[in-house]
Amino acid sequence: MNKVGIIGYGITPFSKDDQKIETVMLNSTKELFKTNPQIDRKDIDAVLVSTNNNSKYLSPVLSEMAGIQPNISHTIESLCNSGTNSIVSAYSYIASGLADIVLISGAERYDSPGQILEWDNSRGEYKHPIFWASIFAKSYKREYSISDEELAVVSVKNHKHAKENPNAMSNKTYSIEEVLNSKKLTDDLKLLDCSRPCTGSASIILGSEDKVKQLSENPVWIAGIGQKTISAGFTKNISFSSMESTKLAGQSALKMADKKIENIDVAEVHDAFSVCEPMALESLGFAMDGKGTNMVKELHETNNFKINPRGGLIGSGHPLGATGIAQTIEITQQLQTKAGNRQIENPQVGLIHNMSAAATSSTVLVLEK
Amino acid sequence: MNKVGIIGYGITPFSKDDQKIETVMLNSTKELFKTNPQIDRKDIDAVLVSTNNNSKYLSPVLSEMAGIQPNISHTIESLCNSGTNSIVSAYSYIASGLADIVLISGAERYDSPGQILEWDNSRGEYKHPIFWASIFAKSYKREYSISDEELAVVSVKNHKHAKENPNAMSNKTYSIEEVLNSKKLTDDLKLLDCSRPCTGSASIILGSEDKVKQLSENPVWIAGIGQKTISAGFTKNISFSSMESTKLAGQSALKMADKKIENIDVAEVHDAFSVCEPMALESLGFAMDGKGTNMVKELHETNNFKINPRGGLIGSGHPLGATGIAQTIEITQQLQTKAGNRQIENPQVGLIHNMSAAATSSTVLVLEK
Repeated sequence: MNKVGIIGYGITPFSKDDQKIETVMLNSTKELFKTNPQIDRKDIDAVLVSTNNNSKYLSPVLSEMAGIQPNISHTIESLCNSGTNSIVSAYSYIASGLADIVLISGAERYDSPGQILEWDNSRGEYKHPIFWASIFAKSYKREYSISDEELAVVSVKNHKHAKENPNAMSNKTYSIEEVLNSKKLTDDLKLLDCSRPCTGSASIILGSEDKVKQLSENPVWIAGIGQKTISAGFTKNISFSSMESTKLAGQSALKMADKKIENIDVAEVHDAFSVCEPMALESLGFAMDGKGTNMVKELHETNNFKINPRGGLIGSGHPLGATGIAQTIEITQQLQTKAGNRQIENPQVGLIHNMSAAATSSTVLVLEK
Repeated sequence: MNKVGIIGYGITPFSKDDQKIETVMLNSTKELFKTNPQIDRKDIDAVLVSTNNNSKYLSPVLSEMAGIQPNISHTIESLCNSGTNSIVSAYSYIASGLADIVLISGAERYDSPGQILEWDNSRGEYKHPIFWASIFAKSYKREYSISDEELAVVSVKNHKHAKENPNAMSNKTYSIEEVLNSKKLTDDLKLLDCSRPCTGSASIILGSEDKVKQLSENPVWIAGIGQKTISAGFTKNISFSSMESTKLAGQSALKMADKKIENIDVAEVHDAFSVCEPMALESLGFAMDGKGTNMVKELHETNNFKINPRGGLIGSGHPLGATGIAQTIEITQQLQTKAGNRQIENPQVGLIHNMSAAATSSTVLVLEK
């Protein structure tokens, strides 16, 4: 099986801009080619678009606009983890020998139709994600005696990280009090506990071992992949205080990479809402059950950027189809020591956690130098 | 690299039914499990949905409804060749070792949003596919001195084939005069020259070599894959009398399979409109340029079902995301000698041609016993 790595990437600022989806996805692809002049468009075998946008045939559209005539071209959608699903698909095209170089562009508009899962009647009339997040928060706080203040630290930390990320939607920092006093959305959620949908795009090029060695001075490899789908309906989750799909995907990814969670130096985890970060940290094995907020607090107090260095979804914004790609770019930059003020000291192995629809499905990737 | 083959399939009648997309896609999946009791849902590693429908997260939705908890789950869209794109993606998941068994369900409703490509301004105000098909017809007839009567034979032949296909939308046969006298849509297109969008679903399960040998009594293998994307915009085609993407995809697929076009015993080609069949036959190498209609006429007069045995898109109906899967099932049935009244004598090698948006992109698959 071919080894698969990252050749280059391009990302543009996340915003509330009202741009056409075609413009959005092209923006980061143009940035990619501008910053990676060594990549010849003629060598690109596949173009994948990761989005929830309703426009069709976006991969051939992007190909034409970017001057590429690939063999393979299609869109991939799976709500919020469309991005990492696209990376896994690109990995398989390369590892199987059907492609040597694959471009992925993740793109979304602020008004993405992927925010509400109409099908899920188990949510009753409460279809917006803030409602499952509220149930998660209530359940998690009750099970482990966690306070609103402890959860608020997630938002404080991630906004602090986002301030060092020039592509993040937020560049403001907040105190715990400001998070707690921000607009109350439900009994268990304040506005600053939530990531916000936005317009954004992130592009990445993956390649086979030969192509990566030829085209990247600073290779980063996909060492582990884990994915799990438990259900589509929220109430099929076996717990509202932990993430079963994340646990299983994390175990598979670490096994494939032959790593332990202790080997992970830096990670992006899917903090769609503040409660998701400690839950994900526990389900991935970074912290014991109920101890995720302790870890968050310690990282925050020691100014350690290990978890969600780019500011997470809460600080960066959450353009659904672009999020998994942006997370992967962040870990790549960290491993390449190109993360500026967000840089972790000398990381060797990084992890990406990306999930959809109340963690009914998850993807975990392990990257290494 | 793992060898990849077909373990089982399920297909339900194409119709104008007004059913929810979730019901449509589940129908053929249920048929698949009913007719393949040897397949254990627990062994399914990936579930892919091929559709242009705007509903999100359909792969986890199908998984939950069908009682599957896969690792990989996402939707694939690329207009009319979404189905074969999904088959190629499933192939790559298996060949790369990320999955051993992959379920694909292709599904569409009669009112699919994939019928009009709004982005393509090169079509001016004439965005409906009948307009590019009319330009194809005018160009092809002019270049090779082909008559409307000669093109009408495609529809006559394919409706005749569809009459032997219990899942086809049409069960009527027509004379050349009836095709010519059917409702005039444009100067160069009559109603019976056109495939019709419909509600339909087709599911297929692919597996690794071990799994296919274990679970299928009558293995059929994916021997060749070819894909090419020229553009998204119609007027970027270099010719309106031939299909460049089809030519390149066909050459790649035959090369990978180590076959010549003379080795192909039976084929499904993408007859979205009558003119597409001779154009595709020529671009694939079945006939010399301008001689495709001669081949169609000869096949029709000798009652030879070699090309489009299930009735093609014109006779079967065209549920966009399901079409490529239905074509692949037909060739599988032919190679398994299970095609009933449509059966070709002792075929060893078959071909599938599926394309999108005026042949701006094409997929060609070669299957063998």
